[in-house]
Amino acid sequence: MPELRQNIVTREWVLIATERAKRPDEFSGNRADRPVLPFIDPECPFCVGNEHQTQRESFRVSEGNRWKVRVVLNKYPALLPEGERLRNIDGIYRSMSAVGMHEVIIEHPRHDVTTALMTPAEVVDVLTAYRQRYAELRRDNRVEAIIIFKNHGEGAGTSLQHPHSQLVAMPIVPNQLRNRIEEAIRFFDETGECVHCQTLLQEINERVRIVHESDHFVAFIPYAALSPFHLWIHPRRHMSSFDAISDSELEDLGVMLRAVLAKLYHGLNDPDYNYSIRSCPTRSGPTEYLHWYITVIPRVTRTAGFEIGSGMYINTALPEESAAYLRAVTV
Amino acid sequence: MPELRQNIVTREWVLIATERAKRPDEFSGNRADRPVLPFIDPECPFCVGNEHQTQRESFRVSEGNRWKVRVVLNKYPALLPEGERLRNIDGIYRSMSAVGMHEVIIEHPRHDVTTALMTPAEVVDVLTAYRQRYAELRRDNRVEAIIIFKNHGEGAGTSLQHPHSQLVAMPIVPNQLRNRIEEAIRFFDETGECVHCQTLLQEINERVRIVHESDHFVAFIPYAALSPFHLWIHPRRHMSSFDAISDSELEDLGVMLRAVLAKLYHGLNDPDYNYSIRSCPTRSGPTEYLHWYITVIPRVTRTAGFEIGSGMYINTALPEESAAYLRAVTV
Repeated sequence: MPELRQNIVTREWVLIATERAKRPDEFSGNRADRPVLPFIDPECPFCVGNEHQTQRESFRVSEGNRWKVRVVLNKYPALLPEGERLRNIDGIYRSMSAVGMHEVIIEHPRHDVTTALMTPAEVVDVLTAYRQRYAELRRDNRVEAIIIFKNHGEGAGTSLQHPHSQLVAMPIVPNQLRNRIEEAIRFFDETGECVHCQTLLQEINERVRIVHESDHFVAFIPYAALSPFHLWIHPRRHMSSFDAISDSELEDLGVMLRAVLAKLYHGLNDPDYNYSIRSCPTRSGPTEYLHWYITVIPRVTRTAGFEIGSGMYINTALPEESAAYLRAVTV
Repeated sequence: MPELRQNIVTREWVLIATERAKRPDEFSGNRADRPVLPFIDPECPFCVGNEHQTQRESFRVSEGNRWKVRVVLNKYPALLPEGERLRNIDGIYRSMSAVGMHEVIIEHPRHDVTTALMTPAEVVDVLTAYRQRYAELRRDNRVEAIIIFKNHGEGAGTSLQHPHSQLVAMPIVPNQLRNRIEEAIRFFDETGECVHCQTLLQEINERVRIVHESDHFVAFIPYAALSPFHLWIHPRRHMSSFDAISDSELEDLGVMLRAVLAKLYHGLNDPDYNYSIRSCPTRSGPTEYLHWYITVIPRVTRTAGFEIGSGMYINTALPEESAAYLRAVTV
């Protein structure tokens, strides 16, 4: 029987359409289609040896005189690093200068690696760069929200093979985040609790949607997952802002993130995916109701007219089945 | 210079990223990749002659004893036509029985046609089916919102070649629609006007984003278009619900919709696209602040981690340039 489930974070309903469900192993990725990549690509601006081809470097993780992770300005930035926030009014319309920051995190000197196959220590280096840039950029008083995300594969919106992720520091708080805050406050009003802490509690009790657990993090398929194998990685400790993560939590997250992505890689044949860190607005101090987390979305289905027309999602997989499938993948 | 523009209907900001802009003709569709289709496909359940292969028929447009458009139940419905709306509570989570209606509008007896190349009269037949089903299904007291949409091409979420669209009658009002209503009321509170009527007025005055005009409709690229060639087709007359459309408006819309899709077909080489009719909740009577319209989204770019992480869109085309390009395509 199909059912509607409510995403408790957004209050949006998701159609869990079991009538058209596939078996978990039918959601296959692209490994066979991926090109075999060279160790180093002389044409790739992100490869070791081509550092002069990238824009201004803002941060690096090094070992001796070798870099392990570099953060550089995006060559085609969606937002410009210089300038002030200026509004323009044109009749009933409003526009604003797109100032902020758009950086690329080059995750590895090598061209042919992917997070799922990196060592946990290498993933920790990437996360270290995320934390440093997040903490640094939130001090810019033009910045209201910072989005860190990764696009893996063409279906997830990238054509660059070299392992990289991106950071966008924005001069506004997106509506999506405002709506989440509003819903989190509403939940807090009603219960006195953080909606994420309560979600974690219920997931840990029920266990049916858990994919992986570590000392400081829990990965699970949300009750109202938007799409097959949509995943949330939640810190157990209540923190509103990503940069509040401690060193030991960061180490642990490196192991966790790699494990989750390796489960996708091996269990679903290297699917295209996106992940994103959902954190609070940069001007917000610690709150009792907001709790940062990571969302991972394997791009194994497509959105269509229904999603455009309703803003809702149809998920053709049962979250409990997807979770059991990934739980069983050993990495 | 990149800029942020606010979508006046949703109040969401869109990044118009001119630094990475392409020329309009670089957003090319798939015509060369599309298979050459037979006049009739004996394997296709939607083709004339295979009527017994489809589920229950709820409506048809006929001429003599030949059907021109048929509406049938979806074989794998996302919502079930039978049953009541029942809630289930599982700890902090909520679910609901997915009752409603999921129908397929078979737009033509032939397998090898597409809206852009149909006659205006044939498009009117399809719209006639939309209006009849909309008017009929809104009388079901379990239905809160009706979404009519079309997926054209694999990139837009369909694998069936036979020209068809879909209707989903839902037992809830999606959040997307609730947010639009809230914003429309806010605009009405402030100005005493319908935000869509005011948008139309400004577009008709400025002319720079108009793509096509007819007696009763105006097609234009929104000021804060979400993606390249994202289009709105607005009725000039203020109406909240799609089924308030008159016969003469329906005739005119057939000509308009076909013209807009033909401009995409010829100007962008038959891109994949979705369209959807954005109407008011079915329980809503006529209001001064809601105004139905059609949104058309050519799938010429992909959403990626930024859109997932922020809920915002990056548009790599300037709306005024996209509009000028489509305006010049003769059909």
